[in-house]
Amino acid sequence: MRYSVFAGGKRLRPILCIASGEVFGAQEDQLLPAACALEMIHTYSLIHDDLPAMDDDTLRRGRATCHVVYGEAMAILAGDALLTRAFETLARNGPESLEVRLRVIDEVSSAAGTMRALIGGQVMDIESQGSEVSEKKLEEIHRSKTGALIRCAVRIGAIIGGASESHLQTLTVYGEKAGLAFQVADDILDATASPEDLGKTPGKDVASGKATYVKLLGLERASRKAEALVSEAIDAARQTGRDVQVLEGIARMFVDRKS
Amino acid sequence: MRYSVFAGGKRLRPILCIASGEVFGAQEDQLLPAACALEMIHTYSLIHDDLPAMDDDTLRRGRATCHVVYGEAMAILAGDALLTRAFETLARNGPESLEVRLRVIDEVSSAAGTMRALIGGQVMDIESQGSEVSEKKLEEIHRSKTGALIRCAVRIGAIIGGASESHLQTLTVYGEKAGLAFQVADDILDATASPEDLGKTPGKDVASGKATYVKLLGLERASRKAEALVSEAIDAARQTGRDVQVLEGIARMFVDRKS
Repeated sequence: MRYSVFAGGKRLRPILCIASGEVFGAQEDQLLPAACALEMIHTYSLIHDDLPAMDDDTLRRGRATCHVVYGEAMAILAGDALLTRAFETLARNGPESLEVRLRVIDEVSSAAGTMRALIGGQVMDIESQGSEVSEKKLEEIHRSKTGALIRCAVRIGAIIGGASESHLQTLTVYGEKAGLAFQVADDILDATASPEDLGKTPGKDVASGKATYVKLLGLERASRKAEALVSEAIDAARQTGRDVQVLEGIARMFVDRKS
Repeated sequence: MRYSVFAGGKRLRPILCIASGEVFGAQEDQLLPAACALEMIHTYSLIHDDLPAMDDDTLRRGRATCHVVYGEAMAILAGDALLTRAFETLARNGPESLEVRLRVIDEVSSAAGTMRALIGGQVMDIESQGSEVSEKKLEEIHRSKTGALIRCAVRIGAIIGGASESHLQTLTVYGEKAGLAFQVADDILDATASPEDLGKTPGKDVASGKATYVKLLGLERASRKAEALVSEAIDAARQTGRDVQVLEGIARMFVDRKS
């Protein structure tokens, strides 16, 4: 568990959660447990996705993957335990309002689940390998596989901050657009970055017959799509009328990153 | 998920949760979500334990195991999704008191976790394979691997029923003793039952170098130990001064069962 959680990583979900919460004046100590839970869930999903039975990846966050170091059995259990610990963390810590705390658990369990969510996205991803995938289908996969947890990070920050329902809806759009931009940028990096920069093996998605935006649209159109999504995300965030500079910077960083 | 959850099984954890809650007057609709969550978590742990990288079992609850039918990737994900769905179920349903609801999530996540709990027990079990295991160590493994969730089932029923702390402590002893009796009986069945009765392959634990009570104590002493534990469990339950006939019957059934 520690090996994979403390391997580094960009901590995007925790950062998004905290930034979104701070837009509405939430204190860091109310946000941190949720931020940690998101990173535990993200890390569990990476450990399980990297398993030989799934994507069979050997490099992640610049290190050998969990199962390469500790064996498959321990990697499966480390993932299980991180998912479990995430919910323990959410139940024991964070917002004083028990209603808010339960709502956060509800949002997180739903985003990590099967219906337009993390696990459902991974299932679609596996099932679509080697077959023709339309841009619409690819978007559906990403909205579930990576989008749901990114959107959730933005939402639970806002919920802990006490955002109104209309602000929550607006930030949800921000989270969706930014999440999709992140994934398009991921596909671009997969096609262009070095393994040293990336911390994982590039080109694997294409080699394993997975659909990517670069394969579907070509590099240039994929880049334009990522830029457009970032603009739409920023527009949505600004609609709250709050100071959303940090959220803007994060959305830009999603596509400007080198790893 | 459906294949493994609806494969039958004894539903011991849900039954224990409901029986324990009803001792304190809880209504079934307050108990059922927790009962279902326990069964989802139990089933997820079976799916993952049966994987080739773990115990490599092909028969469970009288059917081919999940990974045999759906492949390893889907079995890992089905397990992940059941664990996730369990927490979603607990967050959305059950006791009206939000405090009780959060406490139940806390208890369940803790029992399903690493410290003297489900996953920790499985880790100890794997690590001890092929080496000499003392009775004390074997008990520690079982208290974690199966005992924690059984104890949790009894506890959360009582918590939902609004049991006092002293009644909760007493029922915790019941849960611990009955849980251990269940495991001793499991080892006896593993040595004596047919695969048809058992719904899984008997003798596998011994063959794979795992310690069992039968191997450590012999059949007769193991039987006496199971009986003694059941008596202690029943004594503890009676100390509540409530009508605990159902809990008594369950504890007896734990060791009298043929499968």
